[in-house]
Amino acid sequence: MSPRNSVAEAQRTKDRILQRAVDSASSLGLEGLTIGSLASDAGMSRAGVIGPFGSREKLLAATLENAVDVFRQAVVVPLVDLPPGVPRLERLIEVWVRYLVDGPFPGGCFVTATSFELDGRPGALRERLRTIVTTWRDFLTSEVSAAQLGMQMPRQPAEEVVTTLVGISMAINQEVQLLADPSAARRGAQAMRHALSLD
Amino acid sequence: MSPRNSVAEAQRTKDRILQRAVDSASSLGLEGLTIGSLASDAGMSRAGVIGPFGSREKLLAATLENAVDVFRQAVVVPLVDLPPGVPRLERLIEVWVRYLVDGPFPGGCFVTATSFELDGRPGALRERLRTIVTTWRDFLTSEVSAAQLGMQMPRQPAEEVVTTLVGISMAINQEVQLLADPSAARRGAQAMRHALSLD
Repeated sequence: MSPRNSVAEAQRTKDRILQRAVDSASSLGLEGLTIGSLASDAGMSRAGVIGPFGSREKLLAATLENAVDVFRQAVVVPLVDLPPGVPRLERLIEVWVRYLVDGPFPGGCFVTATSFELDGRPGALRERLRTIVTTWRDFLTSEVSAAQLGMQMPRQPAEEVVTTLVGISMAINQEVQLLADPSAARRGAQAMRHALSLD
Repeated sequence: MSPRNSVAEAQRTKDRILQRAVDSASSLGLEGLTIGSLASDAGMSRAGVIGPFGSREKLLAATLENAVDVFRQAVVVPLVDLPPGVPRLERLIEVWVRYLVDGPFPGGCFVTATSFELDGRPGALRERLRTIVTTWRDFLTSEVSAAQLGMQMPRQPAEEVVTTLVGISMAINQEVQLLADPSAARRGAQAMRHALSLD
């Protein structure tokens, strides 16, 4: 195998492990991820699973980054061809709700689940998660502010609207994952549009 | 010790174990509760911790019921002297937000955290949680419907308002527990009032 091929092969192995780690952690939690079950799922040894990352902690951190990248691909990338404003916010609602209801993670929104899992566990993962959540909320605040500029109506503070939107996304997640409610998508999208005064 | 005293003593032991179990599980999750750490916290043997309940599973179930009872005392009992309607809904927002920001559980809302923890873990605990969450949402729906009767305004469906309210409570929980945001209470209460068209 040429050096270039072996680098590519190593990356594929990492990706394969991460994919399984993300799927498993979305249902069982990031701390619920055990190297033993990951190894047996992937048909590898425990050392083979940890090796490419260096430690269990680094594997968990890479799993979180991988999940954030999947979220970004699903919910942020589809917006890039629209300028900030109401149509972009409407598309955001559409792709966000689709991600929540019919998303890439079997256990629902990875970041939300991890947020409730790690908030009481001090450490590097929790700090990274805090940055991820803050970045996402700042992004939403700027999107809401931009859309509000074009609206003829008394303005609710953008940060307050973001609390409501982030909250509705969490409620949809509960309706899909715990309650198996088939109306979750329609009702949730409608609640988000109402929170943004889009109807 | 008379039989009556020994019954009372056994109940106090159970209560003491449950109190520690609820505190610990609110930070680490219900499945994160280990009998070993609970025993060492309480200065008891592992058998002494499990004995009064019969099994780890039954101890977890009792922990969940205890947490629900604490929630009910904090958020539902303070409403009983008011008839359904707007003033009662306003008090509900007040006590609910206080519970979220300055509540009895060190790790934040127990039921929300457990919902995201257990949604991907089939079993009796998840089924019980599903009933608890459904009961709470039905209660909120009936409170919102009753308050809407007295309002002069186009009505948003009560179930949709409840998705928004439940969501805001989860967002407040994240702002308090993960982000340590000192504005969480004020902004969250305002977002709930806005969702209910109370302002």
